[in-house]
Amino acid sequence: MTERVVVVGGDAAGMSAASQAKRLRGDGLEVIALERGRHVSYSACGIPYWIGGDVASVDDLVARTPEQHRANGIDLRMRSEAVGLDLDRREVEVRDHGAGRTYRLGFDDLVLATGARPRRPDVPGIDAAGVFGVQTLDDGEDALDALEHDPRRAVVVGGGYIGIEMAEAMVNRGLTVTVVTRSAEPMATLDPDMGRQVHEAMEAMGIDVRTSASIEGVALGEDGRARAVLTDTGELPADLVVLGTGVSPETALAARAGLPLGRWGGLVTDLQMRVFDAPGVWAAGDCVESIDLVSGNRVHVALGTHANKQGRVLGTNLGGGYATFPGVVGTAVSRVCDLEIARTGLRERDCEAVGFRYLTVRVDSTNRAGYLPGAAPVTVKLVVEQRSGRLLGGQIVGRDGSAKRVDVLAVALWNRMTVEEIVSLDLGYAPPFSPVWDPVLIAARKAADLVRAG
Amino acid sequence: MTERVVVVGGDAAGMSAASQAKRLRGDGLEVIALERGRHVSYSACGIPYWIGGDVASVDDLVARTPEQHRANGIDLRMRSEAVGLDLDRREVEVRDHGAGRTYRLGFDDLVLATGARPRRPDVPGIDAAGVFGVQTLDDGEDALDALEHDPRRAVVVGGGYIGIEMAEAMVNRGLTVTVVTRSAEPMATLDPDMGRQVHEAMEAMGIDVRTSASIEGVALGEDGRARAVLTDTGELPADLVVLGTGVSPETALAARAGLPLGRWGGLVTDLQMRVFDAPGVWAAGDCVESIDLVSGNRVHVALGTHANKQGRVLGTNLGGGYATFPGVVGTAVSRVCDLEIARTGLRERDCEAVGFRYLTVRVDSTNRAGYLPGAAPVTVKLVVEQRSGRLLGGQIVGRDGSAKRVDVLAVALWNRMTVEEIVSLDLGYAPPFSPVWDPVLIAARKAADLVRAG
Repeated sequence: MTERVVVVGGDAAGMSAASQAKRLRGDGLEVIALERGRHVSYSACGIPYWIGGDVASVDDLVARTPEQHRANGIDLRMRSEAVGLDLDRREVEVRDHGAGRTYRLGFDDLVLATGARPRRPDVPGIDAAGVFGVQTLDDGEDALDALEHDPRRAVVVGGGYIGIEMAEAMVNRGLTVTVVTRSAEPMATLDPDMGRQVHEAMEAMGIDVRTSASIEGVALGEDGRARAVLTDTGELPADLVVLGTGVSPETALAARAGLPLGRWGGLVTDLQMRVFDAPGVWAAGDCVESIDLVSGNRVHVALGTHANKQGRVLGTNLGGGYATFPGVVGTAVSRVCDLEIARTGLRERDCEAVGFRYLTVRVDSTNRAGYLPGAAPVTVKLVVEQRSGRLLGGQIVGRDGSAKRVDVLAVALWNRMTVEEIVSLDLGYAPPFSPVWDPVLIAARKAADLVRAG
Repeated sequence: MTERVVVVGGDAAGMSAASQAKRLRGDGLEVIALERGRHVSYSACGIPYWIGGDVASVDDLVARTPEQHRANGIDLRMRSEAVGLDLDRREVEVRDHGAGRTYRLGFDDLVLATGARPRRPDVPGIDAAGVFGVQTLDDGEDALDALEHDPRRAVVVGGGYIGIEMAEAMVNRGLTVTVVTRSAEPMATLDPDMGRQVHEAMEAMGIDVRTSASIEGVALGEDGRARAVLTDTGELPADLVVLGTGVSPETALAARAGLPLGRWGGLVTDLQMRVFDAPGVWAAGDCVESIDLVSGNRVHVALGTHANKQGRVLGTNLGGGYATFPGVVGTAVSRVCDLEIARTGLRERDCEAVGFRYLTVRVDSTNRAGYLPGAAPVTVKLVVEQRSGRLLGGQIVGRDGSAKRVDVLAVALWNRMTVEEIVSLDLGYAPPFSPVWDPVLIAARKAADLVRAG
């Protein structure tokens, strides 16, 4: 007998799950996917490049069109939002925004892939016209429309990687840009000593950076649109306000249906992406919490790479195969203002929160042999458990060829390596790629010396 | 009482060992270092960049000058060659080429860091003037002198990375270059299916590539200099012949002293770099064999990065500390003819020689998100043990940002990971650095599917 799965959310996680399950079970599984917006299977991470003009068309960001999914046998319903969920009756209530009607849809299995929503500071005016998130292609289209009206000044609220990428995109379009962040330095996914370098690079490209600042509201013009951002140290005029304040799991639907949420408001699943204590309910992507393999705690990390992997794992299991998503180590890379930035594992403050006693090292090296033209600085910081010497985290800031070096640290974290072991690693060496001691190994060597010295 | 160590060989391994031991033991250790050439502590890997013109001066390739070593308390003797060794009397016989005299030098400890020598095909004329190795700065100076005489045609014997780097350097200087190699494709450290891409890139930059060819001799002109390379398929005119045929351990001195050599002619040491069964004798660098951690066999890998690490490990132990060099996994990277090339672990033929039953996958992906300008191809090949799914080796060929991805595979090999485990790795993702599925993960995913299918 044919079973039916309803997938709520048509981006990376939902459509990966739908595609993989359909591939494995074929006609034995009816797959209905609901997407409330106007796009599916797109790269949200590409939005800043589209806004900045590097990517010509929104179509370039779409990995697979609705028609392609339908050709694969998925019943994909666009502008269809799941507005209610009855787990006892196994029904989802669907609002079809196109047809203007609401209907109920039964299911055997349910996949929640509802993603995340931008965190909006709880201040007056934040929902006004002229204030934009950067979460969906629809958000991106709205922001691009606003850019058509020749705005001169933009304020970005939040100094994380999306905020900085958006700031850079708008500088490239000729706007005067201010970034306001609560933290001591931008890029708070790094420790402040490393974030300082990002701060300097932002200023070097003309971005006005306001740190340790809090937002008190958005002032509106007579037309009801945002005209300034109000902070504890004054008013910042703005024709355009961008929210780069991070995201929270979009789990209101799940919560209303009585599904338990984790510490960060996300759904909590087993290794196969089954929601705990909810038979036949699965979840993947930005709406779930993951296990942080370094600390052992649950964390919320909204990244396309995890969403794709989790969706595929979910679809494999739903399709009758077997796969697991063991967790994350917190790796992230970005390129902003000519800098490559990378991090993995725990920062100093994370170690304190978790209870690790740690030491740190920071070394300056170069991205290739110092005698070659174009050799440029790279800084590597390591966070290491005292006594054991176990690597707990790493951060890298530098020029070309810096960021992906973090993958070595990510794999080392995955395998719980000590810095003493890391020193011996057989990493690729040739003058165009590295000094004869790779910057990562120099840092590990220094850390190993410190650990040994006690 | 002060002890004396004599270090034979003044390049990376020898001087790293000397410096580290001196740093740890200070006045308690007299360190005498012998170097037969005119340079110490240099980057031999940088020679092709110097010959090609990217590096202006030979001084740029010298990490530390003789004067700097002497200021650190090392008695460094230049143009001084160890020509004999008496392990019973604890004496080395030294030929001082500068002063034209020979003397004996007693030691408590001896460090052999005699490096490697280019393998010369055993054919007539191979030692003639106009035939150059690429092993020492002295070799490099000789080759540059020859380039002053406006040669038009060069033949490179050997299609390994040094041969190809030299071929490219000479093309950049305007010469017509032919590369002759015995193997089916150049870059035989890769499997032929990957080497094929290197072949095409070489031809695209105008290099004449002769594969599956054997050298029968070097023909001399009336002046006694090389004028052509003779192969089994004909004569290749040459004003300049470069040997890129790889290197062998330079262990003639050790062999004459009765020290046992390994399968590849190198010295064999314990993890602390002590020569087995020879109390007080140590060795490091290109003259030793290392443990290959994938196969468990001893191998000879002549690379500056290993020489530096081994020298430091040796010096730490000689200095009274503790460090080990566990072995290698066979990682190597290079940039030739606009391609980045990387390999680690075992090739197909290595698996056959060792007895691993294996499968392979090869995938084509891109170095960044496909929608970004400049996205370019990268090919990843994995060699994986059947049934267990254990990674045995990996090869990568592509454009910018391809080669150092091999480090992920190197760390995975070090930790004996399976492809199933690798699929889950939390690698850095952002559009400028990778598609949402990293090329390495796509390859691992495909391999895991094959392993599961049996």
